[in-house]
Amino acid sequence: MTPERSAIDWIAVDWGTTRLRAWAMRGAQPLDARASDRGMGGLSPAEFEPALLDLIGDWLPAAGRMRVVACGMVGARGGWAEAEYRATPCPPLDPRRAIRAPARDPRLDVRILPGLSQAEPPDVMRGEETQIAGFLAENPGFEGSLCLPGTHSKWVRLARDRVEGFRTFLTGELFSLLAGQSVLRLTIGAARPDPDALAEAGAEALADPHAAPSGLFALRAAALLRDLAPERAAGRLSGLLIGAELAAARDFWRNGPTVIVGAPDLARRYEALLLAAGAQACHKDGAALVLAGLAAASRDLPEDT
Amino acid sequence: MTPERSAIDWIAVDWGTTRLRAWAMRGAQPLDARASDRGMGGLSPAEFEPALLDLIGDWLPAAGRMRVVACGMVGARGGWAEAEYRATPCPPLDPRRAIRAPARDPRLDVRILPGLSQAEPPDVMRGEETQIAGFLAENPGFEGSLCLPGTHSKWVRLARDRVEGFRTFLTGELFSLLAGQSVLRLTIGAARPDPDALAEAGAEALADPHAAPSGLFALRAAALLRDLAPERAAGRLSGLLIGAELAAARDFWRNGPTVIVGAPDLARRYEALLLAAGAQACHKDGAALVLAGLAAASRDLPEDT
Repeated sequence: MTPERSAIDWIAVDWGTTRLRAWAMRGAQPLDARASDRGMGGLSPAEFEPALLDLIGDWLPAAGRMRVVACGMVGARGGWAEAEYRATPCPPLDPRRAIRAPARDPRLDVRILPGLSQAEPPDVMRGEETQIAGFLAENPGFEGSLCLPGTHSKWVRLARDRVEGFRTFLTGELFSLLAGQSVLRLTIGAARPDPDALAEAGAEALADPHAAPSGLFALRAAALLRDLAPERAAGRLSGLLIGAELAAARDFWRNGPTVIVGAPDLARRYEALLLAAGAQACHKDGAALVLAGLAAASRDLPEDT
Repeated sequence: MTPERSAIDWIAVDWGTTRLRAWAMRGAQPLDARASDRGMGGLSPAEFEPALLDLIGDWLPAAGRMRVVACGMVGARGGWAEAEYRATPCPPLDPRRAIRAPARDPRLDVRILPGLSQAEPPDVMRGEETQIAGFLAENPGFEGSLCLPGTHSKWVRLARDRVEGFRTFLTGELFSLLAGQSVLRLTIGAARPDPDALAEAGAEALADPHAAPSGLFALRAAALLRDLAPERAAGRLSGLLIGAELAAARDFWRNGPTVIVGAPDLARRYEALLLAAGAQACHKDGAALVLAGLAAASRDLPEDT
């Protein structure tokens, strides 16, 4: 059911490469939530405004303006409008650095939040900084690391409410490419990873950094020679790649607490491997954090720029 | 120019996933060579005979039979006919274990050579065993390792004219998937690897096993933040992956000589990295070896099975 238009005082938007999610907001409170698959990856710059209007047009007032606060790849080069990267170390959000996106509909007042960059080693993020801000809003003063696993996993070191450094791993994307398109597709295809095989291979790759490069083709060979089941091969592939990520990210979790933020299934797998390696780790569902970060940004946005 | 049919006494065939190559042979001497892109990957079992006849039909006698000796993926499950794997340790070839492929044309007497398998860690090869046999025919008694870089790089330990063990790495396939289809495609695409960037990143990954997983997304970030050139990004990607392979294959090259067999450009890159790491390495063009191996197999094939 559509909320009363007059109850909505701003709109929160998380616009990534593959998904567009929007919330009708009253203060920090969501009144309604919608999503579409019109992610940034499939849109030309002129297509962003129509895609947004298609999703939330009925949330807009008949007259007057509506503030829309957006984060994610919508602000990348080739997105709706290019928002800069803010150089770390710095706080995750600075709403004064949000940019306005051009809109033909006079009711739209769209602000896109900047991403974060790191000079050495070179790295960038867009969208995760807003989740980080949401986490810090709930956990002020947290000292430790966040891990945001997924297509492009991010590891983030936090201290004094600032992002001190971060690193991105292609773990999820490597899994998709190897399982779906490499020679391993003949063994894995769309099979779901077996959790036990994942845990076992993850521990192997955490202990031996050569396990991942050495162990990939072995999955195909084991299927040919001894009928390794697709689910176990998928689990071992995921474990080898996650283990290699955890081994390379050891500086982030070796000392101090690590909070894994993401989809519950995946976050729990990271957590189990980290706990077994002696880390102090827990997990937290990520869905609410981006909204908390957008709410914090909205509160601090300058009225006009 | 087509050789005299009467001069041809057998036909050598190297039939891989993407290519079909054939030679008209007199003893160990090639009289003619042809190739097509009708590799095993694109053919159903019934399409192998027509694909072969299209390529070499005019080499066959008007009447009588012609021996065809084939190696490679043509003998895989889903190929023309499934040839077994011979378990290592063993000599690379045993022509008595060749199988006959079914053919409608009565002039074709097609024998497919078996591949090799290894139980632990699980691994298989099809086609490389024939190159190895060609190498050993020219270098009997060689003790050391062969490296056959490519889409699926193979490392092979040889002693007493036998394959003692081997390991496969997906290095070339990973490069293609990452450069062409991951987020790195936006930076690399079809750019050719810069040799200096390759050498530099290869040395980094050889020294630090975490350099490859940590360094992939950094290529995209460096392109965004400081205009890393596509050729340098391609070179660094190739170097990171090759370096990770070399580090994981250290047991093969640490003691004793290593001969790198493959296309000259790629083989020289492996050689330079191995020499810099203190290995005793040299390279050898691989094109002639498969033919030498097929000739050795043909000589030892039983007349009828």
